[in-house]
Amino acid sequence: MTRPMEDLLETAEKIRSMEIRGAALIGREAASALKDFALSLETSSLQEFNAEVSRAAEILLKTRPTAVSLSNAIRMMMRYSGDEVESARRSLAENADNFVDRSLKAIERIGEIGSRRIRDGDTVLTHCNSSVALSIIKTAHDSGKDIRVIATESRPRYQGHLTIKMLDGWGIETELVVDSAVRTVINEVDQVIVGADVITANGSLVNKIGTAQIALCAHEARTSFMVAAETYKFSPDTIMGELVPIEMRAAEEVYPEISELKNVRVRNPAFDVTPHQYIDVICTEVGAIPPEMSYLIIKEMLGWEIEGRIQ
Amino acid sequence: MTRPMEDLLETAEKIRSMEIRGAALIGREAASALKDFALSLETSSLQEFNAEVSRAAEILLKTRPTAVSLSNAIRMMMRYSGDEVESARRSLAENADNFVDRSLKAIERIGEIGSRRIRDGDTVLTHCNSSVALSIIKTAHDSGKDIRVIATESRPRYQGHLTIKMLDGWGIETELVVDSAVRTVINEVDQVIVGADVITANGSLVNKIGTAQIALCAHEARTSFMVAAETYKFSPDTIMGELVPIEMRAAEEVYPEISELKNVRVRNPAFDVTPHQYIDVICTEVGAIPPEMSYLIIKEMLGWEIEGRIQ
Amino acid sequence: MTRPMEDLLETAEKIRSMEIRGAALIGREAASALKDFALSLETSSLQEFNAEVSRAAEILLKTRPTAVSLSNAIRMMMRYSGDEVESARRSLAENADNFVDRSLKAIERIGEIGSRRIRDGDTVLTHCNSSVALSIIKTAHDSGKDIRVIATESRPRYQGHLTIKMLDGWGIETELVVDSAVRTVINEVDQVIVGADVITANGSLVNKIGTAQIALCAHEARTSFMVAAETYKFSPDTIMGELVPIEMRAAEEVYPEISELKNVRVRNPAFDVTPHQYIDVICTEVGAIPPEMSYLIIKEMLGWEIEGRIQ
Amino acid sequence: MTRPMEDLLETAEKIRSMEIRGAALIGREAASALKDFALSLETSSLQEFNAEVSRAAEILLKTRPTAVSLSNAIRMMMRYSGDEVESARRSLAENADNFVDRSLKAIERIGEIGSRRIRDGDTVLTHCNSSVALSIIKTAHDSGKDIRVIATESRPRYQGHLTIKMLDGWGIETELVVDSAVRTVINEVDQVIVGADVITANGSLVNKIGTAQIALCAHEARTSFMVAAETYKFSPDTIMGELVPIEMRAAEEVYPEISELKNVRVRNPAFDVTPHQYIDVICTEVGAIPPEMSYLIIKEMLGWEIEGRIQ
Amino acid sequence: MTRPMEDLLETAEKIRSMEIRGAALIGREAASALKDFALSLETSSLQEFNAEVSRAAEILLKTRPTAVSLSNAIRMMMRYSGDEVESARRSLAENADNFVDRSLKAIERIGEIGSRRIRDGDTVLTHCNSSVALSIIKTAHDSGKDIRVIATESRPRYQGHLTIKMLDGWGIETELVVDSAVRTVINEVDQVIVGADVITANGSLVNKIGTAQIALCAHEARTSFMVAAETYKFSPDTIMGELVPIEMRAAEEVYPEISELKNVRVRNPAFDVTPHQYIDVICTEVGAIPPEMSYLIIKEMLGWEIEGRIQ
Amino acid sequence: MTRPMEDLLETAEKIRSMEIRGAALIGREAASALKDFALSLETSSLQEFNAEVSRAAEILLKTRPTAVSLSNAIRMMMRYSGDEVESARRSLAENADNFVDRSLKAIERIGEIGSRRIRDGDTVLTHCNSSVALSIIKTAHDSGKDIRVIATESRPRYQGHLTIKMLDGWGIETELVVDSAVRTVINEVDQVIVGADVITANGSLVNKIGTAQIALCAHEARTSFMVAAETYKFSPDTIMGELVPIEMRAAEEVYPEISELKNVRVRNPAFDVTPHQYIDVICTEVGAIPPEMSYLIIKEMLGWEIEGRIQ
Repeated sequence: MTRPMEDLLETAEKIRSMEIRGAALIGREAASALKDFALSLETSSLQEFNAEVSRAAEILLKTRPTAVSLSNAIRMMMRYSGDEVESARRSLAENADNFVDRSLKAIERIGEIGSRRIRDGDTVLTHCNSSVALSIIKTAHDSGKDIRVIATESRPRYQGHLTIKMLDGWGIETELVVDSAVRTVINEVDQVIVGADVITANGSLVNKIGTAQIALCAHEARTSFMVAAETYKFSPDTIMGELVPIEMRAAEEVYPEISELKNVRVRNPAFDVTPHQYIDVICTEVGAIPPEMSYLIIKEMLGWEIEGRIQ
Repeated sequence: MTRPMEDLLETAEKIRSMEIRGAALIGREAASALKDFALSLETSSLQEFNAEVSRAAEILLKTRPTAVSLSNAIRMMMRYSGDEVESARRSLAENADNFVDRSLKAIERIGEIGSRRIRDGDTVLTHCNSSVALSIIKTAHDSGKDIRVIATESRPRYQGHLTIKMLDGWGIETELVVDSAVRTVINEVDQVIVGADVITANGSLVNKIGTAQIALCAHEARTSFMVAAETYKFSPDTIMGELVPIEMRAAEEVYPEISELKNVRVRNPAFDVTPHQYIDVICTEVGAIPPEMSYLIIKEMLGWEIEGRIQ
Repeated sequence: MTRPMEDLLETAEKIRSMEIRGAALIGREAASALKDFALSLETSSLQEFNAEVSRAAEILLKTRPTAVSLSNAIRMMMRYSGDEVESARRSLAENADNFVDRSLKAIERIGEIGSRRIRDGDTVLTHCNSSVALSIIKTAHDSGKDIRVIATESRPRYQGHLTIKMLDGWGIETELVVDSAVRTVINEVDQVIVGADVITANGSLVNKIGTAQIALCAHEARTSFMVAAETYKFSPDTIMGELVPIEMRAAEEVYPEISELKNVRVRNPAFDVTPHQYIDVICTEVGAIPPEMSYLIIKEMLGWEIEGRIQ
Repeated sequence: MTRPMEDLLETAEKIRSMEIRGAALIGREAASALKDFALSLETSSLQEFNAEVSRAAEILLKTRPTAVSLSNAIRMMMRYSGDEVESARRSLAENADNFVDRSLKAIERIGEIGSRRIRDGDTVLTHCNSSVALSIIKTAHDSGKDIRVIATESRPRYQGHLTIKMLDGWGIETELVVDSAVRTVINEVDQVIVGADVITANGSLVNKIGTAQIALCAHEARTSFMVAAETYKFSPDTIMGELVPIEMRAAEEVYPEISELKNVRVRNPAFDVTPHQYIDVICTEVGAIPPEMSYLIIKEMLGWEIEGRIQ
Repeated sequence: MTRPMEDLLETAEKIRSMEIRGAALIGREAASALKDFALSLETSSLQEFNAEVSRAAEILLKTRPTAVSLSNAIRMMMRYSGDEVESARRSLAENADNFVDRSLKAIERIGEIGSRRIRDGDTVLTHCNSSVALSIIKTAHDSGKDIRVIATESRPRYQGHLTIKMLDGWGIETELVVDSAVRTVINEVDQVIVGADVITANGSLVNKIGTAQIALCAHEARTSFMVAAETYKFSPDTIMGELVPIEMRAAEEVYPEISELKNVRVRNPAFDVTPHQYIDVICTEVGAIPPEMSYLIIKEMLGWEIEGRIQ
Repeated sequence: MTRPMEDLLETAEKIRSMEIRGAALIGREAASALKDFALSLETSSLQEFNAEVSRAAEILLKTRPTAVSLSNAIRMMMRYSGDEVESARRSLAENADNFVDRSLKAIERIGEIGSRRIRDGDTVLTHCNSSVALSIIKTAHDSGKDIRVIATESRPRYQGHLTIKMLDGWGIETELVVDSAVRTVINEVDQVIVGADVITANGSLVNKIGTAQIALCAHEARTSFMVAAETYKFSPDTIMGELVPIEMRAAEEVYPEISELKNVRVRNPAFDVTPHQYIDVICTEVGAIPPEMSYLIIKEMLGWEIEGRIQ
């Protein structure tokens, strides 16, 4: 095995074992690994270069086959072009650098864009522990706006506990509630802000279990519902009709003693689907868009060719 | 202090200290205690009898001033009549026996009435751990209907764990979900069945936190929503405009380490309010009624005189 | 067999064989038959009188066990009272006469009450062929109001064809549409007026298949939806939780050649259920009521004792 | 003409000419006039007494034929009974005193009942200038609750200007908005409180133009909507299907120069109709009821006999 | 007349007389005819070539002036370019071949894309007889998914009978219902799938009468509603504000004896309009899009120049 | 100061002082002024040219910093390009001419596009006094369609009075209503047509106070709601998350004697925000689009570069 391939496999293994984790980080590390691989590849045949790079990309893709950020990162890089090896190499490296750069700036930019929609005195509700959503809240707070946050505990994994610690550290006044208390407090809320695991082509949001219920409560009470999502969270495959698979997690996460009960099972979906009708705006690093515009984001931002896919 | 009063005070203390608890049981024990007190009262003056009985009733009422079942039990008993002590005594005793009898039969009757609305093959969703709601489910199962139950865990106190154990024991196929997964599963559900802490004069339901969110999800998906409630859960005071006070429970119940965080508080409401528009039917021991008919139940079943109250 | 019983059995057979049919007619004929039976009964023992009359009532009830108008008619008659045979006989006869009288007047009265809610120039949409609903339309027309009717054809039995012939005969300008065109025309409609097969205790309407879809369209377009129903269409059994059974009719009624297809079945429900939220008012012979008041109608108009039923 | 009749005619004229006006006042003055008339009537024939009283009642009724409070007042008084003139006279006088007494107490009682539903810190929105609605607001304020009011100007007659002066006088912090700004401010509102001109048998509210739009905005934003209405605002005629006539007022009230425009007319309805689905509760002097219970209020509180009317 | 023109006129006549029919087939035959015409045209003047081709295109367009598929086919072909006759000829021929090819592949592709959204075990409801919608169902079935179909009969022309025969032939378990039974069965349905006659610029669907009512029922029950539509079903004219004309068909189709009735007419619209709010996704051959994206499809897929049209 | 700058400052002052006013006019005058400035600028250094033009553009922008039409006009002009001064000058002048030309044609075009959506016999409701909305109504009327208009008075500035005079002058049958009567008349309306102050990136409409309430009423009654808006009303800044500031106008405009009241303030917002869910279509000069497509309009029509903005 060549040296470049060894390094790439090492990174691949770290992603597979979740030593490297987090949608954004996975994408950036994969991009860097593929770039290094391409730069080190010793060949003067463009055909061979393309074949080797494709093989390496496949290896990275298989580490987390359902992670939209990973497949989008690889997809962007593989749009390199060149008449000969050196120009192809440079093109791929440039694509990789662009992805890393975009990813690093995205959370910050979304924080700025989203925070403009928060007014002084607003109460914000957030769910789970989304770094992009929290970037919006923190940016608003740092810009001197007096805001208050209500955070859900986010069963079954209590990511809300992490959220309240972060908010506490930033000095933002916060209330913690159980997930089922959202409808009770929603009339006090001016903005719901959540992150995203996947945005589909028709503007639906796949996010932490409970998100859709919050969106429904917000809709019932005419409360704004904002999603924070980097563009690499948008799923090109959904244009081809693919449904986003909803991960079913272990029963014990919800109820450790489940094996003692004969007639009882646990259903533990990690995510749910919020229809676009309940979403007011999606804040991406390229601007605040209505959810129905997701198809265009996929097409333009991800450089994904519809025509190419459908043949 | 007289002997009768001593006995009554003892029961009162047990209710206050929650040695005696559960809405139905509190009512029955208070009824028995007041009956015993009246039967033992040594006086031939009707005026004195009335005064003593009123004083005793007040003592019982004060043990749990917000428990609707208790105040309804006392209220029913105090509607005794009589031209002289003996007939008054008998009337009060009869009222007490009637209340105890009604209470004992209510859960069983509601089980029968409600179970007729469950069809063979239905999937039922329930929340928290309501003995009346479970009576409906069990009666349907016992009558040979093939039913399946989805139970929520019911944070923060996990009463759903008790529910799944009971259902498991009865041999009913059950799934446990976190509270925020209700919208994900609701399209599979034919009937939501929940209990009640209080029913108000305009048909709103005060019940375990999370109930209103489930009702909203059921409404969005055109799923039936049934409430099981004994008539002594209906609140006469709400006719006079009184709002049902929502108990705020300890922060530590939700997040034990809350004191470590400077800017974070916990809001832990025990109940929420479901508007009558989301309730299809309330099953009481006197029949299945639309929620808007609650005013009539209060008037007729609780024997409570509107005119009397408003003067 | 006695002569009175022979006569009664003859009527029972005519009802069973549908020689006598139509909800109102069945009720009146059964009332007359039971009255005749009671008047002819030769006994001086009240106990024997009661037993014989009960037996006769049972025979009539069994002819069409799911016909709410029949069971309500019998139920009203059986509320006779009397200390001895003659007074009991008179009481029963009076009940029977009252029922017949009420039934005869009901359609006329509902016509008057309902027609007051139609304004000059209104467009009315009706479904199926309901004599009570048409009584309202005809009364409005006869009182000089300029009205226009849209009638659905009402698949699968095309009762709408009968309706348009009646409207044509009365000189009322009418349009016929297929059932699935209702949403297209509903914005031109001021009032939807339909009849009822059964009204449940919580105000739901069981009526000809398609009614619920029309109600939904009316609700979406903020168009009034009025139900015309004699009080003997209200179902006491639904207070006890009974669901109204929905008759499934023959497949051939929808598609005569169904037997030629191996993998295809026909589902042909005769009725559907309209939730009370979509009903603005129910016009009965005792007044125009909100659907939620159905429970009271059952209790007061049908003389049906809740307490008696639940013991 | 007799002296008693002269006095009665004088009061009738004052009502007709609107020298006496306001729903409550009209009712009380008519009651007093009819009572005085009955007390002064010189006859020993019960038949004559009844005939004279009926004639006098008719005269009063015709002064303002569409005023529900007037017809309800007369209706209540005419339910007097008596075997001979003196007892009839006393019964009628008692009915009149009861009506006056009830009317005087009603606003105060509704103020108490309704104010219990206002919480400390609430923002209340009110429309037009309803003394009953304002009684609720003032009672809440007087009881020490910190409340804030938003008042609409209530075109075309600007009754809101009177409202803000009253609120200003009571020291209640108030904001004035144009009628079309309600949707903009409704998310800050905890309770909408309005009065009533008429409540119909199916719970609809007829009130000042603009009320229905406010109710719709409140519904969209999950804001509570409370109606304050004395029981004599409930319309018995609507049970018989009567629609409440909506008064069309002069064009010039809206646009004085209308006559200069050839193709333009003004439509100036004084009232609109709010459907019961948008009303959470109606506060009457006999308690807070759901709107669907209006039929029962009419029957029980107004002593109006359905059976009697329909024969 | 030249030979090429004779051939083209022959095809035009077949389209006009509906010998050639079906949206897709019309488009392809017109494309072939225009291509043949262009290839046979004997001229060396580009100006003359352009003029002749334009004249031929006009002739074809006039055969079915409201068929969106025809005008879209011609429009695509007329976007040929070329500096001289031969290159223009080749360009037009290529456009024609592309259209034919795209059309032939579209149904198959939509079948693949749409079928990915059907899960194993799903129940699908379909209306009328749409080859594209059925392509989705068949593809899902062929891929081994266990699905069940409910088909409406689709009055007045009973296209549902054709649908159930096709489904029967493919071995798919199917139920037939009358159109007005959709609300009764919709809670069992996971996906509604229908075809399209026209998609407008703002995402509305014009399709067989009854479609909008089904969409409304699906919306009420939170059931997915999917439209299958080739891109040449999208209407460019609607961008210019044109409303899609709704064809009114013969009265006798609904009620043959209509002429016997003096006051009755039949209204028989062939199509209705489903608002985009009730559509979850439109599956086209270029991907699954939200309905709001229709404007972009028109612009990009149909190559239609907004700027050109508006000058 | 140079002569060109003096002229530009003069125009700037007229815009600032509102001597020049109206969204369209401001844009055109600013375009002409900047063009004249550029044409007169004496320099051969491209760098200096660019600097001077930028400074002049800034001066114009500051005259009305929140007017979207002004900033859009300047933005379009500043997209000039050129390698040297003369080509840059020509490019800027061309941009200016294009803007003026587009603006002049836009109202006419929108009138044509929008009027196609009005059918013969329609009733149209309009609010405030929008020249673009009225262009649609007048074009429909001029094309021979028989239409009727309902106009609101549009408190607090009664722009509706201007509207009814214009409609009267054109001979269009019109009714004037107060703003709060919209829900009463909306069931008679086929189309609501309003103008726009700003359209945001997610398709929300900022328009005269009261618009959102009308849209809500239209939505409740299934009445079409159309917005007329030139593309330069679309706000690029909202893509970056900027909220549209809502102008608060003087209290005296609503209630001149406000200073006499101690506890009362007036809230007088000039505009409100209508969510895109209540808008069926936006008619622009480049076509009728769904509101969700606003982002694309901003991107394509305004030539505004997302990428450029976000760096």
